[in-house]
Amino acid sequence: MIKVVIIGSGNVAQHLIKVMQIAANVNLVQVFARNKESVLHLITEDKITSDYNAIKEADVYIISVSDNAIAEVAENLPFQNRLVVHTSGTSELSVLDAKNRKGVFYPLQTFSKSKEIDFTSIPICLEAENGEDFKTLQSLSQNISEKVFAISSEQRKSLHVAAVFVCNFVNHMYTIGNQICEEHNVPFEVLQPLIMETAQKISTLKPEDAQTGPALRNDTKTINKHLEFLQNLDYQELYKLLTQSIQNVKKL
Amino acid sequence: MIKVVIIGSGNVAQHLIKVMQIAANVNLVQVFARNKESVLHLITEDKITSDYNAIKEADVYIISVSDNAIAEVAENLPFQNRLVVHTSGTSELSVLDAKNRKGVFYPLQTFSKSKEIDFTSIPICLEAENGEDFKTLQSLSQNISEKVFAISSEQRKSLHVAAVFVCNFVNHMYTIGNQICEEHNVPFEVLQPLIMETAQKISTLKPEDAQTGPALRNDTKTINKHLEFLQNLDYQELYKLLTQSIQNVKKL
Repeated sequence: MIKVVIIGSGNVAQHLIKVMQIAANVNLVQVFARNKESVLHLITEDKITSDYNAIKEADVYIISVSDNAIAEVAENLPFQNRLVVHTSGTSELSVLDAKNRKGVFYPLQTFSKSKEIDFTSIPICLEAENGEDFKTLQSLSQNISEKVFAISSEQRKSLHVAAVFVCNFVNHMYTIGNQICEEHNVPFEVLQPLIMETAQKISTLKPEDAQTGPALRNDTKTINKHLEFLQNLDYQELYKLLTQSIQNVKKL
Repeated sequence: MIKVVIIGSGNVAQHLIKVMQIAANVNLVQVFARNKESVLHLITEDKITSDYNAIKEADVYIISVSDNAIAEVAENLPFQNRLVVHTSGTSELSVLDAKNRKGVFYPLQTFSKSKEIDFTSIPICLEAENGEDFKTLQSLSQNISEKVFAISSEQRKSLHVAAVFVCNFVNHMYTIGNQICEEHNVPFEVLQPLIMETAQKISTLKPEDAQTGPALRNDTKTINKHLEFLQNLDYQELYKLLTQSIQNVKKL
């Protein structure tokens, strides 16, 4: 059994609290939360603490707090030479206090509080300072997910930028599509199959080769019609820039 | 039985020829193709013609050709007062010749020749000039798909702009993500589950409510790191504009 303490009560922490309790070979010893109430629906009260000095012994301490708070939390830990990891895609290994053995346990997924998640298909990106700690994180991860990757701080940085494009920015495209539909009384569900097909397509095709549409065809008639149609100046500007960028990729 | 003639031999036409032959209550009477060879693998020769004057009687004539050719084909039809529809998302109803009763039968999906498609989940957007013709198109469509919508020319225009955002521009985000991964030796497959989850999420959540990431959190530290990371000036500019646009939506 790998003994785990989770420090944090946010979105990611909450999902981790859930999955660590049902995972085989994992013992969620304790949760540290400044506000106990926030995790009471997930774990029994005797396993929650708000006192750094009451944190129990474990094989892995998972700090799952906002990026800005990681360093402070790591510093506050009243022990040393234990394996302490964070769950951030953006923070470097070095933000963790050097008094403990550092690592990263980064589940690459968008977590919404309201939506259940199947952890088995979530890639978990791991980093550690030495082979033994890496193995511990690997065993832990393999009890949760089928997709475990060794990803360095440098690689993680690029992965996070890429994730902003394929997840956050993609979702913003959905938001714009939905707004256009709402404004014109078209049910957004009409676009759902297209959205799924677009996402599925790139599991077999390179995204570059899957590109279609007026920008790629340089169909200026349609492009101008669309620009005229868009009342929102933000979206007009985005349409122009994205069209240009698709055409620049094509030229390469 | 609804008698149908399909005019055209391109991508969409070929998919329609296949599905109309297996659909219940649909009789695909004939296919008009300038080049017979192009559809011989789909339907027996006696049902193919290249001669406008040999076109048989039917309840619905489906013109499935490129946008530029629709008007000419509709004009060439040697009959009048019959129901003639096109399959385009961008062309208006009015491009069809007024000598016949006009309509639109627009299956909203990206069609690749090489990829089999399950028509039952493809939304079919219908428009007609009168109630009776609409009913005919509706009966026809319901034999093919479970998702049939009444969509006016005006609505279809907005749908097409929305589709550019949720399909073409989304795919460009995938292209950028893939490029970043390739440049930093990270397997793009790490991002696949995130991509699928992001697409699936909005079938139950409003895209606005599904938004996550540094832009939404106004996490300027991360945003600046990412901008510094991006070498490509196009992508830097896109990152800025998309971040700004996400924050503008949030403010509303």
